[in-house]
Amino acid sequence: MSDQSFALTDMFRAGLPDPAPRFDGLPKYNFVYGHNDPSQVPAEALAEAAATVLRDNGRLLGMYNLGQAPQGHDRLRAFIAAKLARRSGITCSADDVLVTSGSLQAMDLVNNLLVAAGDTVILEEFTYGGAISKVQKLGARVIGAPLHDGGIRIDALRTILEDLKRQGVRPKYIYTIPTVQNPTGSILDLDRRHQLIALAREFGVPIFEDECYADLVWAGARPPALYALDPSRVIHIGSFSKSLAPALRVGYIVADWQVLSRILATKTDAGSGALEQMVVAEYVERNFDRHVSVLTGALRGKLDVLVDALGQEFGTSAELFVPQGGIFLWLRLPDHVDVRRFAQAALAGGLAFNPGPDWACDGEAAKSHIRLCFALPTVETIRQGVAELARVCFEHTGVPEHGVNRRRG
Amino acid sequence: MSDQSFALTDMFRAGLPDPAPRFDGLPKYNFVYGHNDPSQVPAEALAEAAATVLRDNGRLLGMYNLGQAPQGHDRLRAFIAAKLARRSGITCSADDVLVTSGSLQAMDLVNNLLVAAGDTVILEEFTYGGAISKVQKLGARVIGAPLHDGGIRIDALRTILEDLKRQGVRPKYIYTIPTVQNPTGSILDLDRRHQLIALAREFGVPIFEDECYADLVWAGARPPALYALDPSRVIHIGSFSKSLAPALRVGYIVADWQVLSRILATKTDAGSGALEQMVVAEYVERNFDRHVSVLTGALRGKLDVLVDALGQEFGTSAELFVPQGGIFLWLRLPDHVDVRRFAQAALAGGLAFNPGPDWACDGEAAKSHIRLCFALPTVETIRQGVAELARVCFEHTGVPEHGVNRRRG
Repeated sequence: MSDQSFALTDMFRAGLPDPAPRFDGLPKYNFVYGHNDPSQVPAEALAEAAATVLRDNGRLLGMYNLGQAPQGHDRLRAFIAAKLARRSGITCSADDVLVTSGSLQAMDLVNNLLVAAGDTVILEEFTYGGAISKVQKLGARVIGAPLHDGGIRIDALRTILEDLKRQGVRPKYIYTIPTVQNPTGSILDLDRRHQLIALAREFGVPIFEDECYADLVWAGARPPALYALDPSRVIHIGSFSKSLAPALRVGYIVADWQVLSRILATKTDAGSGALEQMVVAEYVERNFDRHVSVLTGALRGKLDVLVDALGQEFGTSAELFVPQGGIFLWLRLPDHVDVRRFAQAALAGGLAFNPGPDWACDGEAAKSHIRLCFALPTVETIRQGVAELARVCFEHTGVPEHGVNRRRG
Repeated sequence: MSDQSFALTDMFRAGLPDPAPRFDGLPKYNFVYGHNDPSQVPAEALAEAAATVLRDNGRLLGMYNLGQAPQGHDRLRAFIAAKLARRSGITCSADDVLVTSGSLQAMDLVNNLLVAAGDTVILEEFTYGGAISKVQKLGARVIGAPLHDGGIRIDALRTILEDLKRQGVRPKYIYTIPTVQNPTGSILDLDRRHQLIALAREFGVPIFEDECYADLVWAGARPPALYALDPSRVIHIGSFSKSLAPALRVGYIVADWQVLSRILATKTDAGSGALEQMVVAEYVERNFDRHVSVLTGALRGKLDVLVDALGQEFGTSAELFVPQGGIFLWLRLPDHVDVRRFAQAALAGGLAFNPGPDWACDGEAAKSHIRLCFALPTVETIRQGVAELARVCFEHTGVPEHGVNRRRG
């Protein structure tokens, strides 16, 4: 490190977030972020794929976007269109696909297309924390649509839309994760998908569909994507972060050219990383379905361990929202427990979890909730981490008083 | 493509740029963007590097940022620090380096740290077009500092800073490309670098130093970076786009932790592409200096062809700013020539160049200028493209009336 610190910090613009802390390593019991299972990354096959594409076409890296369209690598976009047809019921072509640097850039681009300060957006009451913070940063008003076990509640959404209409407000979008909802893990059934589309039509509100976990469904099949039901009212995003590897920053937007051409004009990054796109294209063309099938099996095995461990440690104190796919589990502790009271203490002891309020439009409504990502830790670490969670939770809240076989305190 | 176009375009926010056009292939005579020479991309060595890192550490891709600090891959940051010590005279550690998705993300992050609407920034009068458009988009006021053959004019810069001070304005930064200036290709000498730093100290203005071409200097050595002279007042950015391959989106910011910690808090992309970082790290550790030496030789050879062809076709009508490194040449036609008058016609004929006004704070002042990137086209295409440039330019402006050996018209 240099011995002189920056002398002109008074020039920083107003309104910056707090400084990032120094990185201190990953926590021992790591149940946060969307890490995947490192043992499931197909390292050898990716090595072969990378060597092949670089030997065959490495010279193309000398040109921005490989000399291809700024929407992304041709082969990858063709694969994404084919995958979406096969797995999500979507009819589209490579021309309807824009490759992004992860689905976070996709979210930024969609927000930048639609949302200005003072606008209103509808999110699911419990949803991806980044989706909330991104629109809040833009100065938009966030309304949380209630969920039930099967996803977004259509009746409650109608009430919200009617109320807003009476106020003269047309929301910029309804952001939904219909297939493996984050954090509840639910899958919206086909009937409700049709009802959701009908509401979007009736009220003239775009749907912003996030399918980033949709390839990891225990049952294999799932209902068609909302985009499949009405491409004229839906902007669809997805990612290879969960199905392949999160450190590969490869996501995508699927939408009509009227949408993509406007988004593309604001994507001033000279293209997303082309080597990652080339390698992913080469790998997934031959291996995607088989890989996802194996990965899903492994994740489901870890979920079973997590559910068992939570039962052992928390007994009936924890209500589990057992997911229908994906990498996380949402749970609810008794109403008098505020998980924020022990999140810092847990972290000091090496245990990281997502407190419910970070994943909720109204933090108070999720104060007793926790999101646990189970893809990264080994089954042994999952068991130890859940024991540690029960210990620190009991220490600060008196819950769980007892697990299945024993009494605390 | 889907058969239904997007029905809710009325929901797009106000102030979006015009839609992007459909991609129509690269122009035949392509003198634009920062493409590199595809024949110089070390495809085979990158294939070996990729296979090695994926076999050894591919599993780490299962974790965001490879489970490392969000500043980027440890090995790459250590290499960047070592490279900067060796080539740019900078003393820093990996802790002072933040890896970005190309230097364009680096620019966005630095702008977001410092610039708000209504702020004033100082750029070089002729400079990278993206640097201008990015601050204009933020609503900042742009002031162009005059250049001469050796880079930014210190006397003129002092006058600007004094004028602004009288108005009570402290600019948010002086953006400069001191080593292979874009577009003039000049290198600021050491005396002027010290004078520039002295002005930054006197007026309390940060310097935003862009060194993205600095590894491609004909002479090999160059003066130390501004950051080397005063890390407390300089934010430094660089890239592997020009020294390795532009479709690899790997850039970096070098700055004190007081700067990086604030920038990092706004870098909400879950990290830049890790595979590209791993592959670049593995490759450059063993090959960087040798590769850059070979690449620079090849580029200089292309420049010689370009200079010769321009002499043949334009004779004394074109004043050439022969660069001291890099991938582009800046030229000036007689004052009565407005290159904007034939840029579209040229493009229709397959010839793309950067009109001077796109690379100038005051477009009118560069209306007779052209930037030609010479890295991508072959020497044959360079010669043909320059002939086409002379033809279309003559057709629309009467210039060049004659080249060295012949008369037109």
